[in-house]
Amino acid sequence: MTCDFLAQALPCVQKLSPYVPGKPVDELARELNLDPAGIIKLASNENPLGPSPKALAAIRAELPELTRYPDGNGFELKQRLAQCHGVQMNQITLGNGSNDVLDLIARAYLAPGLNAVFSQYAFAVYPISTQAVGATGKVVPARQWGHDLEAILAAIDADTRVVFLANPNNPTGTWFGPDALSAFLERVPENVLVVLDEAYIEYAEGEELPNGMSYLARHANLLVSRTFSKAYGLAALRVGYAVSSAQIADVLNRVRQPFNVNSLALVAACAALGDTDYLQEGRRVNAAGMRQIEQGLRELKLDWIPSRGNFIAVNFARDAAPINQALLKEGVIVRPIGGYGMPDFLRVSIGLEHENERFLQALRKVLAP
Amino acid sequence: MTCDFLAQALPCVQKLSPYVPGKPVDELARELNLDPAGIIKLASNENPLGPSPKALAAIRAELPELTRYPDGNGFELKQRLAQCHGVQMNQITLGNGSNDVLDLIARAYLAPGLNAVFSQYAFAVYPISTQAVGATGKVVPARQWGHDLEAILAAIDADTRVVFLANPNNPTGTWFGPDALSAFLERVPENVLVVLDEAYIEYAEGEELPNGMSYLARHANLLVSRTFSKAYGLAALRVGYAVSSAQIADVLNRVRQPFNVNSLALVAACAALGDTDYLQEGRRVNAAGMRQIEQGLRELKLDWIPSRGNFIAVNFARDAAPINQALLKEGVIVRPIGGYGMPDFLRVSIGLEHENERFLQALRKVLAP
Repeated sequence: MTCDFLAQALPCVQKLSPYVPGKPVDELARELNLDPAGIIKLASNENPLGPSPKALAAIRAELPELTRYPDGNGFELKQRLAQCHGVQMNQITLGNGSNDVLDLIARAYLAPGLNAVFSQYAFAVYPISTQAVGATGKVVPARQWGHDLEAILAAIDADTRVVFLANPNNPTGTWFGPDALSAFLERVPENVLVVLDEAYIEYAEGEELPNGMSYLARHANLLVSRTFSKAYGLAALRVGYAVSSAQIADVLNRVRQPFNVNSLALVAACAALGDTDYLQEGRRVNAAGMRQIEQGLRELKLDWIPSRGNFIAVNFARDAAPINQALLKEGVIVRPIGGYGMPDFLRVSIGLEHENERFLQALRKVLAP
Repeated sequence: MTCDFLAQALPCVQKLSPYVPGKPVDELARELNLDPAGIIKLASNENPLGPSPKALAAIRAELPELTRYPDGNGFELKQRLAQCHGVQMNQITLGNGSNDVLDLIARAYLAPGLNAVFSQYAFAVYPISTQAVGATGKVVPARQWGHDLEAILAAIDADTRVVFLANPNNPTGTWFGPDALSAFLERVPENVLVVLDEAYIEYAEGEELPNGMSYLARHANLLVSRTFSKAYGLAALRVGYAVSSAQIADVLNRVRQPFNVNSLALVAACAALGDTDYLQEGRRVNAAGMRQIEQGLRELKLDWIPSRGNFIAVNFARDAAPINQALLKEGVIVRPIGGYGMPDFLRVSIGLEHENERFLQALRKVLAP
């Protein structure tokens, strides 16, 4: 008789359902016996431009050092980020993607008996990281698919240690403005860590969204997380970061695995940060692609949630699972978000013009009577 | 008045002292204003051969996919590992280095009130991962610097959930044989997860060390962890893995971050696994370098701990910190292991012939009366 190592795991771990990622192209090709070259993936909010040439050059230059451990302190990347955001290096925590940063926060500040507050339809990693450490996730009903900041404030109680906010939010694309953020930060208890997840902010900056970094000096309980996986085009390499008070960064760095960010990610992120052409072109392509898809949806008489990200949640007003299956057979991968409690929606990442057109064509075919 | 976010962190996190990595070449160059090209680093048990050409080719071929998320299931790498070790794919857990695997085990199976047992002088990540989740580390006194398996068995109590064993062990290089492992596994309670860390096994295989993989079928409570950071030469990329029962792998994969292993690591590991020439050359260079350094130490009338790894712990029979400082000024980075309770020792990684000679020359100079 052998031991039951599921029953032996911590109760919170037994109840965990892992994150469901976008289906990889190779996986769909295997499953449906399709040619991978004919498949388009608009499922993971990836940058459709392909890699930044500067990032590629930095990676190639680093390849001779493959046998060496990364710089566990990420000196050069932190130096550049500090300069970029006008903060000190000791305010920065590097993560294996911003997912890692979210996990570090939960591991440092949450435990059974404590809770984290976040919105309905907020990014799936908030509940997962919270549950993985046995803490309670308090889900606040959304308002028009977006964060209801007043209700989030009201949900904070004596056991709340963390509030997760996403601006713009994934998978809905919803956002809030500078006045709403200011008002929130002025009223949130100062012992509650406010995690402002700006994974998509580079697509939204300069419009009516605040830059979280500019609130750090005034609010010691604010942490801003960012990623190189979206606008900077480095999803494959896994690199994200948090900027916070030096004290919070010190705590997170204690929990952090010493070599959590790989060497190629470190050099590529430095290079990508300096590639403003790439960033601008990405924003331009995203804005144009958003208009193209919105126009296509309009012609199909479909509704959607207005989005400031590089993706759009389309409302089919009926169970979207069969539509998703039909799109897969057409070689088009988008993202079902039933797991978010949005079974009538599919989330579509903005691609290049011809990819957006492939998606719209497939959708027209699938929805044809 | 702002909140104290150190006091607010979990008590176990407040007490954490992070892992102290080997000093990077660039850091020493900055600190002592030395030319990085003149510095040699024998501090992190890295493969001195430089990268496997097959791994490099695989990375280059994957670069166009940099904007895409990795395959979160690591399908291809798991398929190759399963074939290599004669196990099923669902028995494998991939990690961001084997450090990540050790952390996942602690997060799934340890908590306040529970404990993990490991040897004095064992790898530093065992106590760190244990403390990070608030569990207790029970340290069992070593026997001749190595694991005392009898005493480890005796230390297991009703609250023990995990035993960490390293074979060979880092930083001592000590090892145990197949009979000792068999006897241990027959007697360990079946509800205690035995983590057999074989990070250095590729340097020791075929001699008197057991291959942990061959004990998995008989012992459902055994987990074997391995890494691509040492003999496979991919430390920069962060990839390790565990092989266990499918049930334990399922639990660990629930806690695992969905994209914990980056895409370049996945393809490079597949390629490295198939590069037997590289592995053999690494073993040959390591064996020759070990003889070279042992001979040099003998001439200096220094003692050391016999090692089956790619490193050797040298006993200076007095505080080694000043010797380490003097070596740094010579541009030679080795590893002080005072943090392991071995202040009289320095751990030296086996390098190429000329690097070993540089180290011995510097040591002769530093020790000269």
